[in-house]
Amino acid sequence: MNKLSVGVIGATGMVGQNYLRLLENHPWFEVTYVAASPRSAGKTYPRAVGGRWVMDQAIPASVADLVVGDAGDVEAARTECEMVFSAVSLDKPAVRELENTYAANDIPVVSNNSAHRWTTDVPMLIPEVNAHHAEIIPFQRQHRGWAKGFVAVKPNCSLQSYLPAVYALMAAGYEVESLIVTTLQAVSGAGYPGPASIDMIDNVIPLIGGEEEKTEQEPLKILGTIEDGAFVSADGPAISAHCNRVPVTDGHTACVSLQFGAKKPSLEEIIASWRGFEGQPQKLDLPSAPKPAIVYREEQDRPQPRKDRDAGNGQAIVVGRLRECPVFDVRFVALSHNTVRGAAGGAILSAELLRAKGYL
Amino acid sequence: MNKLSVGVIGATGMVGQNYLRLLENHPWFEVTYVAASPRSAGKTYPRAVGGRWVMDQAIPASVADLVVGDAGDVEAARTECEMVFSAVSLDKPAVRELENTYAANDIPVVSNNSAHRWTTDVPMLIPEVNAHHAEIIPFQRQHRGWAKGFVAVKPNCSLQSYLPAVYALMAAGYEVESLIVTTLQAVSGAGYPGPASIDMIDNVIPLIGGEEEKTEQEPLKILGTIEDGAFVSADGPAISAHCNRVPVTDGHTACVSLQFGAKKPSLEEIIASWRGFEGQPQKLDLPSAPKPAIVYREEQDRPQPRKDRDAGNGQAIVVGRLRECPVFDVRFVALSHNTVRGAAGGAILSAELLRAKGYL
Amino acid sequence: MNKLSVGVIGATGMVGQNYLRLLENHPWFEVTYVAASPRSAGKTYPRAVGGRWVMDQAIPASVADLVVGDAGDVEAARTECEMVFSAVSLDKPAVRELENTYAANDIPVVSNNSAHRWTTDVPMLIPEVNAHHAEIIPFQRQHRGWAKGFVAVKPNCSLQSYLPAVYALMAAGYEVESLIVTTLQAVSGAGYPGPASIDMIDNVIPLIGGEEEKTEQEPLKILGTIEDGAFVSADGPAISAHCNRVPVTDGHTACVSLQFGAKKPSLEEIIASWRGFEGQPQKLDLPSAPKPAIVYREEQDRPQPRKDRDAGNGQAIVVGRLRECPVFDVRFVALSHNTVRGAAGGAILSAELLRAKGYL
Amino acid sequence: MNKLSVGVIGATGMVGQNYLRLLENHPWFEVTYVAASPRSAGKTYPRAVGGRWVMDQAIPASVADLVVGDAGDVEAARTECEMVFSAVSLDKPAVRELENTYAANDIPVVSNNSAHRWTTDVPMLIPEVNAHHAEIIPFQRQHRGWAKGFVAVKPNCSLQSYLPAVYALMAAGYEVESLIVTTLQAVSGAGYPGPASIDMIDNVIPLIGGEEEKTEQEPLKILGTIEDGAFVSADGPAISAHCNRVPVTDGHTACVSLQFGAKKPSLEEIIASWRGFEGQPQKLDLPSAPKPAIVYREEQDRPQPRKDRDAGNGQAIVVGRLRECPVFDVRFVALSHNTVRGAAGGAILSAELLRAKGYL
Repeated sequence: MNKLSVGVIGATGMVGQNYLRLLENHPWFEVTYVAASPRSAGKTYPRAVGGRWVMDQAIPASVADLVVGDAGDVEAARTECEMVFSAVSLDKPAVRELENTYAANDIPVVSNNSAHRWTTDVPMLIPEVNAHHAEIIPFQRQHRGWAKGFVAVKPNCSLQSYLPAVYALMAAGYEVESLIVTTLQAVSGAGYPGPASIDMIDNVIPLIGGEEEKTEQEPLKILGTIEDGAFVSADGPAISAHCNRVPVTDGHTACVSLQFGAKKPSLEEIIASWRGFEGQPQKLDLPSAPKPAIVYREEQDRPQPRKDRDAGNGQAIVVGRLRECPVFDVRFVALSHNTVRGAAGGAILSAELLRAKGYL
Repeated sequence: MNKLSVGVIGATGMVGQNYLRLLENHPWFEVTYVAASPRSAGKTYPRAVGGRWVMDQAIPASVADLVVGDAGDVEAARTECEMVFSAVSLDKPAVRELENTYAANDIPVVSNNSAHRWTTDVPMLIPEVNAHHAEIIPFQRQHRGWAKGFVAVKPNCSLQSYLPAVYALMAAGYEVESLIVTTLQAVSGAGYPGPASIDMIDNVIPLIGGEEEKTEQEPLKILGTIEDGAFVSADGPAISAHCNRVPVTDGHTACVSLQFGAKKPSLEEIIASWRGFEGQPQKLDLPSAPKPAIVYREEQDRPQPRKDRDAGNGQAIVVGRLRECPVFDVRFVALSHNTVRGAAGGAILSAELLRAKGYL
Repeated sequence: MNKLSVGVIGATGMVGQNYLRLLENHPWFEVTYVAASPRSAGKTYPRAVGGRWVMDQAIPASVADLVVGDAGDVEAARTECEMVFSAVSLDKPAVRELENTYAANDIPVVSNNSAHRWTTDVPMLIPEVNAHHAEIIPFQRQHRGWAKGFVAVKPNCSLQSYLPAVYALMAAGYEVESLIVTTLQAVSGAGYPGPASIDMIDNVIPLIGGEEEKTEQEPLKILGTIEDGAFVSADGPAISAHCNRVPVTDGHTACVSLQFGAKKPSLEEIIASWRGFEGQPQKLDLPSAPKPAIVYREEQDRPQPRKDRDAGNGQAIVVGRLRECPVFDVRFVALSHNTVRGAAGGAILSAELLRAKGYL
Repeated sequence: MNKLSVGVIGATGMVGQNYLRLLENHPWFEVTYVAASPRSAGKTYPRAVGGRWVMDQAIPASVADLVVGDAGDVEAARTECEMVFSAVSLDKPAVRELENTYAANDIPVVSNNSAHRWTTDVPMLIPEVNAHHAEIIPFQRQHRGWAKGFVAVKPNCSLQSYLPAVYALMAAGYEVESLIVTTLQAVSGAGYPGPASIDMIDNVIPLIGGEEEKTEQEPLKILGTIEDGAFVSADGPAISAHCNRVPVTDGHTACVSLQFGAKKPSLEEIIASWRGFEGQPQKLDLPSAPKPAIVYREEQDRPQPRKDRDAGNGQAIVVGRLRECPVFDVRFVALSHNTVRGAAGGAILSAELLRAKGYL
């Protein structure tokens, strides 16, 4: 299989940097194009990103010589790459318009931006959970009159720490009625610079603007169905989220209490469901698929962000502390790496899925 | 009113140090005696505590000249003080026996230790919540054949961040059926040295051994009744607690989702209930009583441990973010200072209550 | 003595907030005026500062009703206050021009800004070190044709942690030839928001732009003399500074190695010099003067920022670990509170000095 | 080349865990034996280490089935491995005696312990600096009557962040007269549990017991010569060290001011010397040798512990901020990974060197 030439638009921001870091040496994709604001256009990537490169690793050699394009110049992208990962940060209508323009110009877009999450014919993918939502793409193309292009997005990072673990139980046949989740989220989730250090040293901030709504609502689309070429959200589960910012660099932790429907699994059945869970990425053996998708740790004090965020190269969900809940049925702790699985890494896994399914 | 001469037993540990710090210049109590293990006995307090003094403030001048007694030598305490605050750390049967011996020797004990929390005739006091539980003391004395002595204790620090706020609603006439609470607890709650820094930098630990059980069960005794000279626990509310350790020095934060019974207050009624709440400490104008007992903050991102833990000199409960809960009725965030209100400060407030009521 | 009515210009920023916090209940000064950018003008102070109030304490009651003025409207200030503390943040020429305009309009300015630090007739005061530099004020007024107004400034926060301790030795008669100092500086020194939390968790940044130069050069003006109505910098000591940012909220720590001239004190003589040191603030018994000015701690592991920054209400210098240096003569660790002594608190102490000396 | 079978004694502590982590899949060494205290002996390694396994990675599969031996039972080790890495923690005479016993029984010892650092015929190796010190081994064997065994040690972690960078300049022909270094050291340097989190949150501790002496004196042995079968320390450079503990997990940072002798290199010459530096590990192409040995970073704000500690798989020295020093000649910042290069990783590199030279 030839490598697909890919572009990253919004390449100088923190998510863009993560794309470049994670795409280095990727077996299926090769970054041949980077674009950012007109201010950056025309400079080499290292010069454009300058002191704002915040990855712990150095700028990948493969992009060090790329000259940054203007993200608004779709025609330029078209000559340089076959699809783009979008990490642009504009206001939402502008993002939607820009991503549509790429798609209309035969350049498929896999986006980290939230602008298109609620567009009725745009799939919001967690590849282990709703790989079949890719089937909306032909409808999307038909609606818009697009030939080769399309837009696919990924959901908010906070829900990725717990939703795959909940879905694995649903997939095993246990209806989930409701859940109350409290997240302890890493500062990198806010982008760069994110929270001021003076606010995070010896402190916790019990608010992340807009995050609770996303954490509660996006799962319903992800668990929804396609009807007449549009997504219809699921009725449940009912979700209540308390989202907190804690002084952790990477790794969102979620404490979940969960109420099942009539059929209630035992703790052993739950662990077995998690350990046996395979999504499409695992079945298709996608390059970035974590194996296993869900890691259940027996130690009583796990998962912990610093020790578990890199499981499965940052793509796995790590779960622990499963126990009875005195109010609901069961409770547990789940964790995922927010800037890998919850952002660029999740988008790359989605792109791998879309390629394996023939959309790319 | 003459000052009561008080002793602190277990005076060299972190809780003991907090007692000494908080009792300096107290209007009702004067520390005239300190005791610790035989190893420390005979030394001046500063020499006995040595490098283990961990308060940010200096050793109070009033105790700098005290010679440390042997905590096991009850006879010695009897000549030096009229009551003791207990911060001893032995195994539980030994604590119970020692505290009983003080009481049997006419020395009332107000204890920070958990050993006597479930003794059926020992009150576990949060003065704003169950001041009337002090009425068990005559029964306790009668059962044990004690003349002046008695034992009273305080509950676990973690529940102090949310229970007074929940109780204020019950006191306003709203039945609380169940609640799910996730705590983000400070490292000082574990005593000294507590968690290793290597475990808390860039990390969260989703387990505090034994804490969830205490957080769930102790409220039922606190909300219970006295029948035939013994405590009978309340039937509810049902409580589920997820307890996490976060890199914060002081201040436990709690994210609470709460289900009412049939009578459901509006958000405005809840805030009014909190703001109007007065417990016995406020009504009796006790020296350490925070006024108000409960601070409701309007800012969306509060309470925060570093900014709110010192409210009411560390004795107030600070609440914020009251909002509807998509699963239960309402949810909010509550915070209290775990080493003041949740430990030595709470015990001092209890002793003030007991003095105001004539038991001391 | 009547209280002097004072204004704070640049009142909504972090330094401005610190002025307001520290001036509450001040015995000599009363805040009657606050000003900021035109955008804030006309709003009450709490509304103007909004979510940007970052002090742990609440907005002082005394300023809650003040309506914010436009800092550029000097005429308005003139009717509301007799002097101003300046915390404006504009580019340096604009700051100099604005502060001059206040002074020209009979409003003395004590400034936290660095713009005027190297103006030859503006005193840069550490009241314990160069109180006599206030004597430049008559020259300044004469040069500029100002009647009652003047401008005085304070130096950079980083040098305040070690320079008073070094000066105390010079005052005791020991010539200091050179010193190499490494600072571990708190994030609050960078203002708000300052360093991103993602850069400070589990990390140290070995650069603070421009700080090393200030730390090395400003002491020479402070230790200099007035000749012909202008400051002439001292020849020495030679200073080399390594400035680091560490994950600490408040409190700059400095590790100092120091070389004396021919006359070398013993360690005992040095400690005696520190403990016996009194500057003009102590001699004049100024309200904010720490007593003692320099605290020497015997414990081997002090000073520490969290435990020592509040010594003398944040105005003292805390020193420890004096020992021989294998390369220079001696070495020690010094600490001061950067947002109190090193910023607003130092400026307030300077204003007290200037009032005691009759310039205000 | 067959893999050498190696043992790790003191395998359950933090340094022992690091050995096991770093030796997994090593091309030259295979862990065939682990030993610890009698209390652990007889258990499988995972059971023996229990909750005290503190590495972020899981226990290596290759040791999961090993049964822990008694570190005092040298005869047992002899049948299981050809050399041992020592991470025992006993008092120093006991360590010396135990390590000697292994050596006397034909089991070479490469030790992380400080007990033998000043033994006159034991080499204290930084392979890039004093690889030739291995030549003491024949003398050591002769003195003690050992056939195959020997003891070699590594120096303190703190000096590894700066000494190789200083040595590279000496190797380039520039005499170094004196240096003043301030270190900002990670908490992992103190072993587990190390500093309490309550002491490291929002704080710095300006003391690491014994560390300054080691940082000043050990370089003199490392830079010394072998005369008559014993080490003679170098006369210089004169070193003054200020050692601080900062809230960083891994990575010691050092701020160095350095005075040359008569021949003074330019800044460019210094950078060229660093970039061109090759030690024996690089020349011999040892498996763990970082290439380059010294990384010079141009960015003004580097090195930083979180971003640079993993350079060269944690074995490189990262240097930056070279600039003139107003007191000495030049100054710079250097960093190394204290639990890799500064501990187990450095010892493994030493063992590779000793194998390449035929001593193992």
